[in-house]
Amino acid sequence: MAAPVTPPRGMRDFLPNEKAVREHALGTIRRSFAAHGFDEIETPVMEDSARLHSGLGGDNEKLGFAVLNRGLSPADVAAAAASGDLLSLADLGLRFDLTVPLARFYASHRAELPAVFRSIQIAPVWRAERPQKGRYRQFVQCDIDIIGEAGPLAEIELISATTAALDALGLAGCFVRINDRRILASMLAHWNVAPDLAERALITIDKLDKIGVSGVVTELGGLGVDTDGIAETLEAMPTLGWDAAAPAWLDLAAYAELHALRDALPATRLVFDPTLVRGMGYYTGTIFEIAHPELGYSLGGGGRYDGMIGRFLGTDVPACGFSIGFERIVDLLGETGAADTDAVVLVHEKDADPAGLVALKTALVATGLRVRLERRTKNLTALLDRAAAAGYGRYAFVTPETAQPGSLQFRPLGESAHHH
Amino acid sequence: MAAPVTPPRGMRDFLPNEKAVREHALGTIRRSFAAHGFDEIETPVMEDSARLHSGLGGDNEKLGFAVLNRGLSPADVAAAAASGDLLSLADLGLRFDLTVPLARFYASHRAELPAVFRSIQIAPVWRAERPQKGRYRQFVQCDIDIIGEAGPLAEIELISATTAALDALGLAGCFVRINDRRILASMLAHWNVAPDLAERALITIDKLDKIGVSGVVTELGGLGVDTDGIAETLEAMPTLGWDAAAPAWLDLAAYAELHALRDALPATRLVFDPTLVRGMGYYTGTIFEIAHPELGYSLGGGGRYDGMIGRFLGTDVPACGFSIGFERIVDLLGETGAADTDAVVLVHEKDADPAGLVALKTALVATGLRVRLERRTKNLTALLDRAAAAGYGRYAFVTPETAQPGSLQFRPLGESAHHH
Repeated sequence: MAAPVTPPRGMRDFLPNEKAVREHALGTIRRSFAAHGFDEIETPVMEDSARLHSGLGGDNEKLGFAVLNRGLSPADVAAAAASGDLLSLADLGLRFDLTVPLARFYASHRAELPAVFRSIQIAPVWRAERPQKGRYRQFVQCDIDIIGEAGPLAEIELISATTAALDALGLAGCFVRINDRRILASMLAHWNVAPDLAERALITIDKLDKIGVSGVVTELGGLGVDTDGIAETLEAMPTLGWDAAAPAWLDLAAYAELHALRDALPATRLVFDPTLVRGMGYYTGTIFEIAHPELGYSLGGGGRYDGMIGRFLGTDVPACGFSIGFERIVDLLGETGAADTDAVVLVHEKDADPAGLVALKTALVATGLRVRLERRTKNLTALLDRAAAAGYGRYAFVTPETAQPGSLQFRPLGESAHHH
Repeated sequence: MAAPVTPPRGMRDFLPNEKAVREHALGTIRRSFAAHGFDEIETPVMEDSARLHSGLGGDNEKLGFAVLNRGLSPADVAAAAASGDLLSLADLGLRFDLTVPLARFYASHRAELPAVFRSIQIAPVWRAERPQKGRYRQFVQCDIDIIGEAGPLAEIELISATTAALDALGLAGCFVRINDRRILASMLAHWNVAPDLAERALITIDKLDKIGVSGVVTELGGLGVDTDGIAETLEAMPTLGWDAAAPAWLDLAAYAELHALRDALPATRLVFDPTLVRGMGYYTGTIFEIAHPELGYSLGGGGRYDGMIGRFLGTDVPACGFSIGFERIVDLLGETGAADTDAVVLVHEKDADPAGLVALKTALVATGLRVRLERRTKNLTALLDRAAAAGYGRYAFVTPETAQPGSLQFRPLGESAHHH
């Protein structure tokens, strides 16, 4: 026997049932975003290598799959071996996020786009991460971005469209944790954290959920931060909601702007979390994350990143985006399950006339049914169970006497189908 | 100014209008195939390099994009430079068709699939071809395949589902040219073509449309074929329809099987063409192509390839497939054009209250409308024209007096919108 044949490491096939769930969820998200006035675009899966490694991608740049330059000579390869610069072997790479391609797309097409451009991107990205449960090397991201809007209308529209998509998916109970990078900056200033330690200090604060206040204090101390008063600030955080008196160190302008968002959105959907960090270094203002009371991880996130979209243009353009973590959403949805009574299986004998079968099928399809032909097998129960699992709702036997659409006798598939 | 920023060579971005046409067409095709009992699957865009270069892909294997092995050491690279085997630098590659991945998928999941498996694959593939008009390095294929069905029911269901999809897309006038590799073999035997010349002779016959009978005869002579009688056979071809007396050399069993297909399908959709070849060497029986009376190229094609799907399993499995050339179809469809009166634009003043705007928008979305906010600009006509081009059908001005859904006054977008 041959060795097992599998997809590449960390990548997945989707069988019909899984693919149906994915397409259903993608369609729901797409329709929600479009209803909120966003426009879908598409870019190639590959971008020029230099652009992918321009610094916009942060740590993800290191996880990119590189595509071999087809024009390489053995001498080029020898030179790469000598210099150790193996990336010089690649002229293209697979995108590791949808933000770098969006910046490139915007630079390519700005003249054709409206002054405020609301984009949808729903597409796979690739990262060579160590595969583990729930982490894949090819996965789908669902991003919406608003480019060209500096005011809070961008954040409000993004959060509103994203929560509408989550509602449409039936994911009750999701809410949005929100913060602002300027509030984090004012917190670091309050603690006298040196600017060159700021990024590492934020990474530490981001672990608060996992390592607790004492863990954060210890780690900050290890970085060389004077930890006097830090525990007190952090312990007071849970009481710092929307309506508490803000401490003196807080960036009050940013806090007021968050209140403007809260006032424009359903109050229960937005939770102020002054220790929310988000990993990417490019955020410049608001940051937000989709949370669920029963889940220890976020279902997506985003924020304002005003400096980045214009990078390839050489100009500054305000931008804000929100990304749904599609793979986690799909895991939560599970199987759709519901049988579709408009999907029918026609069970026929082995020697049935193909022309008659297809004529019958075509006539039923024309009435709006989804129709699958199945040749009768010895194990009829297995056949019908499989059809039920595939979402088909009814079945009928085709015999010479019932070869007219009107004379077929349909029975429900599923549990009751076991008795025949 | 920076240099122009473009997508990688031969690859395309899709702006909102283009993406909308593509998604509409993909949805139509997907629904047609599903109505005919096919199930959609998905595989990763990459496959192991060795599998992509196992010979199943024919000439396309040479056009594959190779993905750099991330575990390479400089010593590995030096060895590749020394041996000249640059493909040894890659462990993965981007798929160049959907058939090799289907064979791999079937080998991975056979136990979970029904005895007769009807698959849909709608996905991009990549080929490093020289870019030219209508030929891209990333393009979408729409394939349906039936695996495990040796009889003509497979061909009938495939042709029936494909022509239904073309009808649903509104592409009137398409028909299917059909032939059988065994008929071509009987023709070559009639001409005493030596077996080792057969493949090249078929490539020549495939050019009949372009170089004519005399061109084919000359080229076959150049291959070393005795050309006595070839011109006569070829000139008689156009009269060899479904009902003419078949010449003695013709493989009559294959001809009879084609008649069975013709009898099971609408007669006007199927044209017998004994000189139809199709390029891929893996076809073993019927071959077919979508033709249109006004087009000099095919819109897709397929055939029976019984030897191939089981290759990675080590067993023989009957299989037959049909692929729609999606990019050519989209070019024919052009813009959708029709304005959607359920898509509305709310034009607001620069200083409008964001919370009120979003509340208004959310209320309208809840009634089933698609709603875009647009801040009023000096050139209002340009703003409205752009919204009309994006498919929005109506617009209204939002003022403090009309900030309730019921008090908005909607006007049609498009030509009449130029007067306001």
